[in-house]
Amino acid sequence: MKKGKNEKIVNNLRRLLGHGKVLSSPEDLFCYSYDGTFLYGAPAVVVRPATTREVAAVLKLASAEGIPVVPRGAGTGLSGGAVPVEGSIVLDLTAMDRILEIDTADMLAVVEPGVVTARLHRAAESAGLFYPPDPSSSNVSTIGGNIAECAGGPRGLKYGVTRDYVLGLEVVLAGGEVVVCGGRTVKNASGYDLTGLFVGSEGTLGVVTRAVLRLIPRPETRQTLRADFKAIEQAAEAITAVLGAGVVPSALEIMDDVTIRCVENYLRIGLPLDVEAILLIEVDGPAAALSEQARLIAALCEEHGAVRVRVAQTKEEEAELWRARKAVSPAVVQVKPTKISEDATVPRSRVPALIRAIKEIARKYRLTIAIFGHAGDGNLHPNLLVDKSDPDEMARAEAAIEEIFKAALALGGTLSGEHGIGLLKAPFLELEYGGPGVATMRKIKETLDPYGILNPGKIFGGS
Amino acid sequence: MKKGKNEKIVNNLRRLLGHGKVLSSPEDLFCYSYDGTFLYGAPAVVVRPATTREVAAVLKLASAEGIPVVPRGAGTGLSGGAVPVEGSIVLDLTAMDRILEIDTADMLAVVEPGVVTARLHRAAESAGLFYPPDPSSSNVSTIGGNIAECAGGPRGLKYGVTRDYVLGLEVVLAGGEVVVCGGRTVKNASGYDLTGLFVGSEGTLGVVTRAVLRLIPRPETRQTLRADFKAIEQAAEAITAVLGAGVVPSALEIMDDVTIRCVENYLRIGLPLDVEAILLIEVDGPAAALSEQARLIAALCEEHGAVRVRVAQTKEEEAELWRARKAVSPAVVQVKPTKISEDATVPRSRVPALIRAIKEIARKYRLTIAIFGHAGDGNLHPNLLVDKSDPDEMARAEAAIEEIFKAALALGGTLSGEHGIGLLKAPFLELEYGGPGVATMRKIKETLDPYGILNPGKIFGGS
Repeated sequence: MKKGKNEKIVNNLRRLLGHGKVLSSPEDLFCYSYDGTFLYGAPAVVVRPATTREVAAVLKLASAEGIPVVPRGAGTGLSGGAVPVEGSIVLDLTAMDRILEIDTADMLAVVEPGVVTARLHRAAESAGLFYPPDPSSSNVSTIGGNIAECAGGPRGLKYGVTRDYVLGLEVVLAGGEVVVCGGRTVKNASGYDLTGLFVGSEGTLGVVTRAVLRLIPRPETRQTLRADFKAIEQAAEAITAVLGAGVVPSALEIMDDVTIRCVENYLRIGLPLDVEAILLIEVDGPAAALSEQARLIAALCEEHGAVRVRVAQTKEEEAELWRARKAVSPAVVQVKPTKISEDATVPRSRVPALIRAIKEIARKYRLTIAIFGHAGDGNLHPNLLVDKSDPDEMARAEAAIEEIFKAALALGGTLSGEHGIGLLKAPFLELEYGGPGVATMRKIKETLDPYGILNPGKIFGGS
Repeated sequence: MKKGKNEKIVNNLRRLLGHGKVLSSPEDLFCYSYDGTFLYGAPAVVVRPATTREVAAVLKLASAEGIPVVPRGAGTGLSGGAVPVEGSIVLDLTAMDRILEIDTADMLAVVEPGVVTARLHRAAESAGLFYPPDPSSSNVSTIGGNIAECAGGPRGLKYGVTRDYVLGLEVVLAGGEVVVCGGRTVKNASGYDLTGLFVGSEGTLGVVTRAVLRLIPRPETRQTLRADFKAIEQAAEAITAVLGAGVVPSALEIMDDVTIRCVENYLRIGLPLDVEAILLIEVDGPAAALSEQARLIAALCEEHGAVRVRVAQTKEEEAELWRARKAVSPAVVQVKPTKISEDATVPRSRVPALIRAIKEIARKYRLTIAIFGHAGDGNLHPNLLVDKSDPDEMARAEAAIEEIFKAALALGGTLSGEHGIGLLKAPFLELEYGGPGVATMRKIKETLDPYGILNPGKIFGGS
């Protein structure tokens, strides 16, 4: 019965798109059954449209037949946003990967959703410009996925997140209508901000088929320094002092003791094992101002108890300082095969309190949790290092994650700074916004997707 | 009949709020019948709630009785967003004017909607911080109004607009339910961005009763320079060159020949009357970098044909340079009693084309149009100088405005950069977004305001 239904869907899609763009072999379906989380779901079929018209045709069919559609970029998401619903059509947008325009005069790019983030970084740079959002997955992730989840990265403190760079979108709605919102101007106060509404909506309101992205002048140069602190609180005080002095670093990353140990075991580069926190601070801008800023930051870190401050004097030293931070993800998976990466986010001043709370939760549930992330934003990434084949450990991890969310919310924070809600955090959304807030979001979902086909179960759960 | 109905509304509102918060004398009603445009509408009653609960009570009554509600701050809006619908309740939010918090550690402010923008500027500054949005009306306008219309100002190029500083909102929905969206974190990827949806929604989706606003470190210092150009195109090329050199000015204002003449007639400060454009450029940031940046900008302006560049060397010289720009509004109303201020916005490179088009339109309709604005943003303010008691001139102005909008849209622009759509631009919204785009916005309006009571007629027209 189900098989017959799947065959009919596959045949209909082949008629619409041609054979080559419709995948239905078990091997293909498996490749599309997961994302960057430990979750799994079996789609009925995968389609790889090449044009907006093809996307519209798929959605028209899906809404008429009531088949769920799961839009997908590179599948690097960390909240389950791209995990297929059972029996769904996976809409793989990676074939729509053209950079249509880099406009240096108006400082913008027009791209299709399948463009890999790092490719846009390079294209902007070649034109003397800069696209700041840089999620860790940027060598693989796509702009469409970044828009869907409102991806961030270390540069968020100074430069903001994906949302801040989307000027306009072309979006295919659930029924196949194509809507254009926003535009090519850096300011727009014309009608509702549909652009902003679609950013971060995780494929539940429409499918982005084109984006106009703001680029900015490339900063002249940058300088990096590292400061080691015996106590988390000292690191936090140093951060407040730096920002209070009027300096906005282009990155302000923290690594806790567990993370430092993981990285040191992995790289053997002599990281200090007797400190609670390392801060990695980067400033960028006109060369004339940077050494003074770096000196000021170093002085403020020392004043607030840093046991050691290193200022990179060369590009090589800079790369060396960043090497530890960039190795965090490969390093932590040496400890355990499954890493659950969260992104609980709190007002900046509450970072030490959240770190303390997470450490307490790790003890309580006998888990290893490496904490690192964007301290300047209050955006931490507690990474639970577990083994998904160990059901007892997974149960403890699940309980711990719930407590971490509650701790972040109790500190005035949010469930997600840059990963989205997806499937993993859907049960907690009401804790953050209360009944009326979630009801308002749901009403918008039901209005724009009356068929309920667009990535059902994401954000709101229950599918 | 109508009078009886109005009396009933007034009595019901007095029961809810007490006598002092309900105004219904003809004099009071007249004071609330207009905004910064030439439009006029007679409300039935004005209420001045002091708490969120009182706002909710008014909306509950209004939705039950089907009475339109027009939220209002200082009434300085330039698109008619606060002009009362006939027979409406004007919801004056200026009594809710508390700055509840300036949090220096987390760099945010929590305010009620009636706080005057300039008061927040001063409060932030006293704490060593900075709230960048600075509409020209900031000495009078309120944060609630700024949020409703997504106000901007000269600092938009470097610092963005109101939308970029709203972290969270408390909003009363049409039926009186209170929703909290966003929060106190600088990053939030949790659920739909309701905060962003309410910003710029002109009181048609809900009434903002509290806002969490992001503050940033106060820039160390600033430097201003003025460059005069024989031809608009040279000024535009200089702008592109400055931004292309990686310098992002904190203000980049343009004044055209008509504007220059108006200001010179008003102030007699020796502005050049033989140039097509004056650029006023401000850079801010660490002192160490500024003089180098100012030198670079001056050189680039000269390279692109500036006949004169003046760099302010003292605070007094800086104030002198800004004096001409700040006098534009009083200066232009010396020419004619009615000024219709538009905010057509185009991609930056199209500024010269838009200026040429507007000048052609001015000739065609025998109108005086002073053009100035935020050239770095592509956000121009063509000010039509007319006399509203002259019906022929007003008819020509109306036709000219329609052509200006069409010209801006044809150049890839938008109807509004920072004034909103209100009543004046509602007839043109579909020209910008097409049928499906406007239909999507309308659906959201109908979903969140099923009673149709919230500022009806604004954005979409037809009321």
